[in-house]
Amino acid sequence: MKITKSLTAPRLMVEGAGQCSDLLYGSGFAPVDPVVLLDEGTQKLLVVPMLEFGRAREESPGTEVVLPETIGVPKNQRRSVSAWALHAVRYRRLRRVDVPAFFPAETARLLERNGIKLEIRSGAMYPERAIKKSEEIGAIAQSQRAAVAAMRAAHRLLIDATVGRRGVLRHDGATLTSERVREEIDITLLRHGCGARDTIVAGGAQAADPHHRGEGPLRAGDTIVIDIFPQHKRSGYWGDITRTFCKGEPSPARARMYRTVLAAQKKALAMIRPGVAGSEVHAMITRYFEEQGFPTTVKDGVVRGFFHGTGHGVGLDIHEAPSLGVSPVKLQPGHVVTVEPGLYDPDIGGVRIEDTVVVERGGARVLCAYPKTWVV
Amino acid sequence: MKITKSLTAPRLMVEGAGQCSDLLYGSGFAPVDPVVLLDEGTQKLLVVPMLEFGRAREESPGTEVVLPETIGVPKNQRRSVSAWALHAVRYRRLRRVDVPAFFPAETARLLERNGIKLEIRSGAMYPERAIKKSEEIGAIAQSQRAAVAAMRAAHRLLIDATVGRRGVLRHDGATLTSERVREEIDITLLRHGCGARDTIVAGGAQAADPHHRGEGPLRAGDTIVIDIFPQHKRSGYWGDITRTFCKGEPSPARARMYRTVLAAQKKALAMIRPGVAGSEVHAMITRYFEEQGFPTTVKDGVVRGFFHGTGHGVGLDIHEAPSLGVSPVKLQPGHVVTVEPGLYDPDIGGVRIEDTVVVERGGARVLCAYPKTWVV
Repeated sequence: MKITKSLTAPRLMVEGAGQCSDLLYGSGFAPVDPVVLLDEGTQKLLVVPMLEFGRAREESPGTEVVLPETIGVPKNQRRSVSAWALHAVRYRRLRRVDVPAFFPAETARLLERNGIKLEIRSGAMYPERAIKKSEEIGAIAQSQRAAVAAMRAAHRLLIDATVGRRGVLRHDGATLTSERVREEIDITLLRHGCGARDTIVAGGAQAADPHHRGEGPLRAGDTIVIDIFPQHKRSGYWGDITRTFCKGEPSPARARMYRTVLAAQKKALAMIRPGVAGSEVHAMITRYFEEQGFPTTVKDGVVRGFFHGTGHGVGLDIHEAPSLGVSPVKLQPGHVVTVEPGLYDPDIGGVRIEDTVVVERGGARVLCAYPKTWVV
Repeated sequence: MKITKSLTAPRLMVEGAGQCSDLLYGSGFAPVDPVVLLDEGTQKLLVVPMLEFGRAREESPGTEVVLPETIGVPKNQRRSVSAWALHAVRYRRLRRVDVPAFFPAETARLLERNGIKLEIRSGAMYPERAIKKSEEIGAIAQSQRAAVAAMRAAHRLLIDATVGRRGVLRHDGATLTSERVREEIDITLLRHGCGARDTIVAGGAQAADPHHRGEGPLRAGDTIVIDIFPQHKRSGYWGDITRTFCKGEPSPARARMYRTVLAAQKKALAMIRPGVAGSEVHAMITRYFEEQGFPTTVKDGVVRGFFHGTGHGVGLDIHEAPSLGVSPVKLQPGHVVTVEPGLYDPDIGGVRIEDTVVVERGGARVLCAYPKTWVV
């Protein structure tokens, strides 16, 4: 069915450096500036500016790479990617194309005013992206190895740290901050060929906000969430791992939170296998947290409990299909997902434990394991 | 006129981590996942998911930050940013909004089907972004200092390198590659609080392709283009600098290419002042290169000469208004632009010299100078 779909509906994309995973998947090319890809399944047309021409031809050998002028874009419209898209569709004599939800509105309007019918896909442009081929799994594993090396370096900083006044951690004669640990992580990732956008090193109340990047001094006794998600500069594939640490003795409340999340992650990992729906895994974890006395509540704008998905697909996007959340999509061999239950409470802290796994016939295979000993 | 425009036309944006400079400018908030900003000039509404709520309220104090449910998004549409946008417009009782060219087509269609009139802006959502306030110039200068520190580190590697067999550069007992130099640059940037996406270290024929990132061994006698454009992780502002080096004696052709580009850059810098159009600067440089015997030609798909703009604005985007290219927009005090003429020929190599400057009443002020001695 997927193949039929890709043969009957030509796909049109306009993507640049900020968001180009479909383009990279469809053509092998990672553009700097926006370019146009028209993918008819067997035939692919890539419209690029002069500056990208040589590289596009090199990186996208199976594709017809053209300059705007080659497909008849008038000189006064040479800088308009919308005009490139219109002329690409005309060049291929198409009347109808599929476009992604995030297709530029300006381009959509130009095409429609010129009689081209647009089917806006709310789902993936390449549904087959969710099932990873073995070389894709290898590429994700490579990023995951970088992430684990960086986690080891961060862990090492916490091990070597001493506890100074008011519980503030010290390292090498200076206060150990989120920023310092993040720098160590990001440098380790670079040495492994990866970039990272928003590495999280968040302690104390910051750890209770799952998207807080973390800043300032780290403290003994606090939960410290370290979430590392590198993208390999060459392959474009991501990895994703989270560990939570505590320097010194955790309070009973924090220790219980950690034990509960650790047990939840183990349960989720054990449940993952082909045929199980992502939503089943997520519902089980949500129920488990409630049973253990960690309900999810909102009071005065403060959220406590478990309020993100149990996991998400990982590939050329850091968040992609399938998800372990509300989606009823059933897991299949070749899916690569994170498994990352977490608990958050500003009065206690935050705990999240995350691995990236491949779904195989026998269950979940963790890519590049790292210990889950949390007390440092 | 700008103010009138921003008062009469509410602006609607849907942006996420990949592309969020308008959102960051309009609200001060840098989202991880897509969010909706409705900017009526005096009143701003930001619709964010639960996970972003705390951080959004902190980072965007002048804005009304709401969850989708607060503005009436039905439960079964809580995950659709298009539904968030529709309900944001209804919540504010608007019938008409301005949206950017890259607004999601899916959201545009939903709004139009619900009777909302969309004005798609082909230009900037915040034209005032082009004129930098003093704190913005400070932020760009901070990134530029990081870029210069990284250039110094790269230059140092070339100085310390020795010339091995067949002219291949050696450093610390190993071949000196583009990758090794890029790693040194990117690590230096990280230590200065900056990230970098596509640092260029390109030698030989690779240097003749302005977008080639560069790979493999560097060689004596070749032109080596190093283009560093970091984004500060905290401020979001970019910097941009390029230098071209040659280890050992350059051939006469390469030396002439370098001298010509250096002279061109000096001319362009001298020409920059308020009231001069970007296109005038670019036309002057193009003409100068032709006069010096470097016409721009395309033959068998190979381009030689000068085939990119003379410069571009720098701010929350690495490429923004104003440009020193075909645009006739006149320069004004507070504009921040790169000045980066270059010459390229696969048989000779590539030379590009770039500084980032602020346009002031008296002319161009270079942000954070670095020497232009090219023979190492």
